[in-house]
Amino acid sequence: MPHPQIVASVLGADYSRLGGEVLDLVAAGVDRIQWDVMDGHFVPNLTFGADVIAACRSYTEVPFEAHLMVADPDAVLSDFVEAGCETIIVHVETCPHLHRTLSRIRELGARAGVAVNPASSLEFVPYVLEQLDHLLIMTVNPGFGGQDYIGAMEAKVSQARGLVRDSGRAIRIEVDGGISVDTAAAARTSGAELLVAGSALLTHPAGKRAAVEDLQRVLAESSPAP
Amino acid sequence: MPHPQIVASVLGADYSRLGGEVLDLVAAGVDRIQWDVMDGHFVPNLTFGADVIAACRSYTEVPFEAHLMVADPDAVLSDFVEAGCETIIVHVETCPHLHRTLSRIRELGARAGVAVNPASSLEFVPYVLEQLDHLLIMTVNPGFGGQDYIGAMEAKVSQARGLVRDSGRAIRIEVDGGISVDTAAAARTSGAELLVAGSALLTHPAGKRAAVEDLQRVLAESSPAP
Amino acid sequence: MPHPQIVASVLGADYSRLGGEVLDLVAAGVDRIQWDVMDGHFVPNLTFGADVIAACRSYTEVPFEAHLMVADPDAVLSDFVEAGCETIIVHVETCPHLHRTLSRIRELGARAGVAVNPASSLEFVPYVLEQLDHLLIMTVNPGFGGQDYIGAMEAKVSQARGLVRDSGRAIRIEVDGGISVDTAAAARTSGAELLVAGSALLTHPAGKRAAVEDLQRVLAESSPAP
Amino acid sequence: MPHPQIVASVLGADYSRLGGEVLDLVAAGVDRIQWDVMDGHFVPNLTFGADVIAACRSYTEVPFEAHLMVADPDAVLSDFVEAGCETIIVHVETCPHLHRTLSRIRELGARAGVAVNPASSLEFVPYVLEQLDHLLIMTVNPGFGGQDYIGAMEAKVSQARGLVRDSGRAIRIEVDGGISVDTAAAARTSGAELLVAGSALLTHPAGKRAAVEDLQRVLAESSPAP
Amino acid sequence: MPHPQIVASVLGADYSRLGGEVLDLVAAGVDRIQWDVMDGHFVPNLTFGADVIAACRSYTEVPFEAHLMVADPDAVLSDFVEAGCETIIVHVETCPHLHRTLSRIRELGARAGVAVNPASSLEFVPYVLEQLDHLLIMTVNPGFGGQDYIGAMEAKVSQARGLVRDSGRAIRIEVDGGISVDTAAAARTSGAELLVAGSALLTHPAGKRAAVEDLQRVLAESSPAP
Amino acid sequence: MPHPQIVASVLGADYSRLGGEVLDLVAAGVDRIQWDVMDGHFVPNLTFGADVIAACRSYTEVPFEAHLMVADPDAVLSDFVEAGCETIIVHVETCPHLHRTLSRIRELGARAGVAVNPASSLEFVPYVLEQLDHLLIMTVNPGFGGQDYIGAMEAKVSQARGLVRDSGRAIRIEVDGGISVDTAAAARTSGAELLVAGSALLTHPAGKRAAVEDLQRVLAESSPAP
Repeated sequence: MPHPQIVASVLGADYSRLGGEVLDLVAAGVDRIQWDVMDGHFVPNLTFGADVIAACRSYTEVPFEAHLMVADPDAVLSDFVEAGCETIIVHVETCPHLHRTLSRIRELGARAGVAVNPASSLEFVPYVLEQLDHLLIMTVNPGFGGQDYIGAMEAKVSQARGLVRDSGRAIRIEVDGGISVDTAAAARTSGAELLVAGSALLTHPAGKRAAVEDLQRVLAESSPAP
Repeated sequence: MPHPQIVASVLGADYSRLGGEVLDLVAAGVDRIQWDVMDGHFVPNLTFGADVIAACRSYTEVPFEAHLMVADPDAVLSDFVEAGCETIIVHVETCPHLHRTLSRIRELGARAGVAVNPASSLEFVPYVLEQLDHLLIMTVNPGFGGQDYIGAMEAKVSQARGLVRDSGRAIRIEVDGGISVDTAAAARTSGAELLVAGSALLTHPAGKRAAVEDLQRVLAESSPAP
Repeated sequence: MPHPQIVASVLGADYSRLGGEVLDLVAAGVDRIQWDVMDGHFVPNLTFGADVIAACRSYTEVPFEAHLMVADPDAVLSDFVEAGCETIIVHVETCPHLHRTLSRIRELGARAGVAVNPASSLEFVPYVLEQLDHLLIMTVNPGFGGQDYIGAMEAKVSQARGLVRDSGRAIRIEVDGGISVDTAAAARTSGAELLVAGSALLTHPAGKRAAVEDLQRVLAESSPAP
Repeated sequence: MPHPQIVASVLGADYSRLGGEVLDLVAAGVDRIQWDVMDGHFVPNLTFGADVIAACRSYTEVPFEAHLMVADPDAVLSDFVEAGCETIIVHVETCPHLHRTLSRIRELGARAGVAVNPASSLEFVPYVLEQLDHLLIMTVNPGFGGQDYIGAMEAKVSQARGLVRDSGRAIRIEVDGGISVDTAAAARTSGAELLVAGSALLTHPAGKRAAVEDLQRVLAESSPAP
Repeated sequence: MPHPQIVASVLGADYSRLGGEVLDLVAAGVDRIQWDVMDGHFVPNLTFGADVIAACRSYTEVPFEAHLMVADPDAVLSDFVEAGCETIIVHVETCPHLHRTLSRIRELGARAGVAVNPASSLEFVPYVLEQLDHLLIMTVNPGFGGQDYIGAMEAKVSQARGLVRDSGRAIRIEVDGGISVDTAAAARTSGAELLVAGSALLTHPAGKRAAVEDLQRVLAESSPAP
Repeated sequence: MPHPQIVASVLGADYSRLGGEVLDLVAAGVDRIQWDVMDGHFVPNLTFGADVIAACRSYTEVPFEAHLMVADPDAVLSDFVEAGCETIIVHVETCPHLHRTLSRIRELGARAGVAVNPASSLEFVPYVLEQLDHLLIMTVNPGFGGQDYIGAMEAKVSQARGLVRDSGRAIRIEVDGGISVDTAAAARTSGAELLVAGSALLTHPAGKRAAVEDLQRVLAESSPAP
């Protein structure tokens, strides 16, 4: 398994200067940027859409991933690819035609990901292994604030890791929600390769770079999934 | 009728530095800022929500207005008031309980507005005169790009002006869509007091200040509604 | 115009003994019982459905009317006729095929009514005069609590009265919301023949009979619509 | 006003040989073919979509019109233009952005029409006069069987005729539902230029040609709208 | 495993005197009361909402449980807690964010339950073990009348019992639908601890007390799950 | 296991002469006809409904099966039984009350089937074994064009075969999508008993009979599921 990567979520960043926030996060050492797209229907909150992402695309070369928490992702896939997202992640709970949705993301030229709510199972995974580049296990409930990391999801991450390993495919496992120096190592050890950090980066008293270094340190000291 | 005011829409602004864009627009002389909130359901596009507006609130003192192009505005009214919007504008096409929605906006401490799509009538106006602070006549179709000012809407603006005048109430009439030096005078003369300008401000070759001055000049030379 | 009638709404009655409440209201002198059916979709609240009404049908002979505040009334019309409702009232805001819905209510053997939200117009009335037995003008917003009588609706009641009078048809006009000794006379004079009373009956300090007598007195002293 | 035209609806034709039915109807003398597209959502019935129409396009040169009784017409406009429909008719009850929808139909190269349910008003007409080629007044409720011609709609047809005449535009008025030798003359005299006939053509004891001739005769003997 | 308990459903009780019905059921010896809340959307029927339950709360001290057969339970959770329900049961089929919904029920101060339709699997259970107090296995299809107990669900009850036992948590398993003297023992032996009885109690020829005693007797003679 | 059967899908047939197409397919030797009913909501395309099927019923005696790719199948089940379909197949993704839906199909006198999208699991199968006559494994995504046979679904077919075999029930397994001489043998060997062929029959250069004979030959040479 490759080295774990730190993905910065812009959720909670200063939306009045998003380009600057992206620059700061990249300068602080994050490997990727995740955009939490919420439409006020699949989740109660409404954040931002493809044009906001597109406006920040020129600030950096690091990959962007769109995490689509929207009720009808099929209608907007191309918008997010055109906005410069390397990876498009849809929620399994919103996709009755998931196999087709993933195929379509690939046809559009992006990498295809699926996000899985805490109570949702991995039943679908064996049927879309050939279409899947990215598997995002939610470790909080998306679109609701003030939640703690759900440790019980580590069993699901391990289960995902097993499915991916058995398939022999290069599907990357990502965790999202409540990742901090207290939780990152366990998440990584259970099988996550990409770790999304939000408030851990944005609210660190010593700044973003210190936050990234702290995370990198605990990850370096952790063991990969067996 | 008071002097006409110029309202800057941020639709199409540089979303990577929205705070700066707001500052620039205010420095250029606009009187108000309009936020085009789209959810990808009532209209095909998804723009931004209350948190983006809140992040820009501290940049200026000019009033913010939220133009809610969303399928279920009742669920989010308080978010936009808390984000610092002085006026909340809902679409008549999305509000089966419009009288209640407007009352609720006022209870939350904001001014209450209604937006009217090009094909929608003003039938509802006489029944909500006591709840209405703001009447927004769309002069393009919301949420679709590349459209021209619909001159035929001036008759609706005149009709709105008549209804408001007869009521004796201080309801402000606003027009939104395709406002430029070519259309602003006619819109004002038909009865609009607030004129939303978007690309006219953002794409003027001599910059935002020149754009505002151009609009102010044509408005100063125009006659108010009879 | 016939004498005005008092319609008791059970909204807010003691739901643990609805049969008894119905008996009490009838004994107190009300002419009809209205059942406020809410489904938690068209309005936020969920009250009760046809089986609750059916259970109370045997307690009295006075006519029952079902006021359907539900998102899809066509699906349940027959349930409410079978429950013993003499009149079925649907909301114009929920019926894209209103002419058909009213025709269907009549085919099922009930009288057909339409309810009109405060912000909704009477535009549809001329097109369904032959299908309409009952026109309910809301004087509060349905499904939300703690609202006052909206005096501005009296103009709509007058307008309805004019449409009905010109048609020569026996369509009864009803008002619903905030009816009390302070408002009943004006509502009647503006053109209402049926007046729905809820909390005025249920919370009168001297009891339901006194409440009905108070209403009857102010109605007797009022003038009918000119 | 030009001579009235007879539009054959294929609703109720023999769907196992639609091409042949179209040929027969054209041979019988009808001027146009209307396709009643129903999706089981806007109306309870599900009939057929664009591919069925496309399959019959090569059988004749007479104009096809698609009458879209579907919940989301915007999503399928191009399908019906590509299927060879000269005119696309959407229902006002399904189009919150009606002005845009009509503009889009024209951009796709077809003529734009609006259908109006029996209980729906013509309020929208003055606001879309420049986008409108076709105004279809329903004289039965769409998507429900066994209904009689609603004579009261003739007042609406007259009202439509007045709006069109005053506009000076070449907008064609069509009536649909229950048209027969008993009703065609009155519909025409009230202002209809196109008359949709369904069962009158398909169930005539002497066949389709006799049916068309009967209709043509009563129309020839009728007076146009004053 | 504790002794099995009998839960009385009020579905089919005399809704004109629900308080009296509750008193009678408690006097007859039932341990809990279940309220079948249906909204006419998730299931075809519409029964009653939180205010009906609240009105009966003062009649007894036995725990109330709300079984929410509604399309959007998140919107109404607090209503049912405030109405005095000790347990709130949501349907897994209606909750895309089930983990969050259960957490929210607990935050509101109630016990959290999930109901599972006959064709739905228990896939979600391992992911919400920490949030779950109550697991309701439907042994008929909710919201449809005249159905028999589905014996094949006993395998699902056993499966649920195994998941709960392995977790070491105090999650109570309940069965609902067709429970009678003919089915209660098998349901209990397969693993149910709470048994919902409706018509078995309400239609027993010797009355409610005899019905409860009959059920208690067969349960006493049955064996618990191995 | 009985001999495999060839099911002709009419998707892509000449819709202007569907009766003739059905005759041709039956003459070519197919065993059954499948009707791909799409409503433009569950899938983007809109094809045809029950009346189209009914019109073709008299052309042949071979069984018809309706494959309902519609958002609300419960509302239309009886239409398709009355149209003469021997089997009604609903999609698991559209049926929150699947057990009830299947029971209802049987009550109406038809055989009950479930279709499973490529990414959907077979979790539900053990819970509806007694209600199920037919299990349709999609080998392409329904309602989207131009897709290839998904070989990975053969594992799901095998899994289905195992579940059915273990149950001892006569549930028929069908595959739908991309079936041709290149894929039929493998599909059959993995466990399919009914194979839906569409374009393989309709676009064969030597005609439908040759196409059927080709399929029959490869099936005859293939081995059944072990």
